[in-house]
Amino acid sequence: MNAFSNQPSPLDITALGNRFVTFSGGQNGEWEVIRVDSVTGDSLPLSQRMSRITGVAELSKDNNEWILRGVTSNVRYAERHEKNQLVAKQAGLGRKEATLGALIPIKKSAEWWNLTQEERRQIFEAKSHHTEEGLKYLPAIARQLYHCHDLGEPFDFLTWFEYAEEHADEFEKLVDYLRKTEEWAYVDREVDIRVRRA
Amino acid sequence: MNAFSNQPSPLDITALGNRFVTFSGGQNGEWEVIRVDSVTGDSLPLSQRMSRITGVAELSKDNNEWILRGVTSNVRYAERHEKNQLVAKQAGLGRKEATLGALIPIKKSAEWWNLTQEERRQIFEAKSHHTEEGLKYLPAIARQLYHCHDLGEPFDFLTWFEYAEEHADEFEKLVDYLRKTEEWAYVDREVDIRVRRA
Repeated sequence: MNAFSNQPSPLDITALGNRFVTFSGGQNGEWEVIRVDSVTGDSLPLSQRMSRITGVAELSKDNNEWILRGVTSNVRYAERHEKNQLVAKQAGLGRKEATLGALIPIKKSAEWWNLTQEERRQIFEAKSHHTEEGLKYLPAIARQLYHCHDLGEPFDFLTWFEYAEEHADEFEKLVDYLRKTEEWAYVDREVDIRVRRA
Repeated sequence: MNAFSNQPSPLDITALGNRFVTFSGGQNGEWEVIRVDSVTGDSLPLSQRMSRITGVAELSKDNNEWILRGVTSNVRYAERHEKNQLVAKQAGLGRKEATLGALIPIKKSAEWWNLTQEERRQIFEAKSHHTEEGLKYLPAIARQLYHCHDLGEPFDFLTWFEYAEEHADEFEKLVDYLRKTEEWAYVDREVDIRVRRA
């Protein structure tokens, strides 16, 4: 047995650099919150503003109504021909005309995580055409996926979208499509946070 | 712009429960360190003892010569027939007769992480037979993989092995085999820490 001090060991997230992201809701932030809906399971508080910070976030005391964290990582399901198309077509975040945003945190079921890689790929793409469908909306809908299944967070993924007012209907079509797929049968919790650049 | 306090936001690793592991080297710990070798890149300090704690670790002040953290996660490459064989054949950690241990932290190259899933699987199994070869050594060599690529840690994986004295030669064969595979061409840093139950 060891004699332990009372210091729990924190992870050094500074080493993740700009791979790390913190979304938080409260009084501050560059995004005005339009609405917060629960799609499946518990919702999140409806805050006035939302902040999205990459790198090590020093949170405002006024922005702790909810806090979600994630990290960019390697692709899990896209194959070479798909990744090449994604890279060729996708737009970056921060476009001036992309005044609307959506943060959709998702938690998948234990059943999903117990599947093997090729079983998950089969559901994700062969049956649900997740990437194939998403590609149709590029570059209009800019998208960034953050992973948090291995970070002890309440969700497994934070999906972040930015788009112009004129593409708002297209975004609804994409979201509606995905929610009807077989993949979505494995979604245990989903919240839909819509924001507008403040 | 937000007015931030000086509080960086720590991840709540308590939510990971026993998925979280902390290995640390120093004066304490249930494992006596036999040797520490650099296989590729920088080594780690040769400490007297090593501790392996699952769950939230409250580290001894005497055990901070080096600290490595990781998390158990879903399988990345094993397909159904392989996962079933692994589950059927593998032994758990903590067997009384398994008095020898090896902690082999590995960091893979940016080139590896830029590959797509099927390209990594192709190298991992079709070319390197990683799982197929490892299966031959079950249940003699108990193995647990911890992920840390997305945690901001200095390594991407912590591979932990426990085995009995009588299987020490077999373990060397397994390690020698893996280091000659095509997969290992993508290993940027590897340290080999050998321990004995104290």
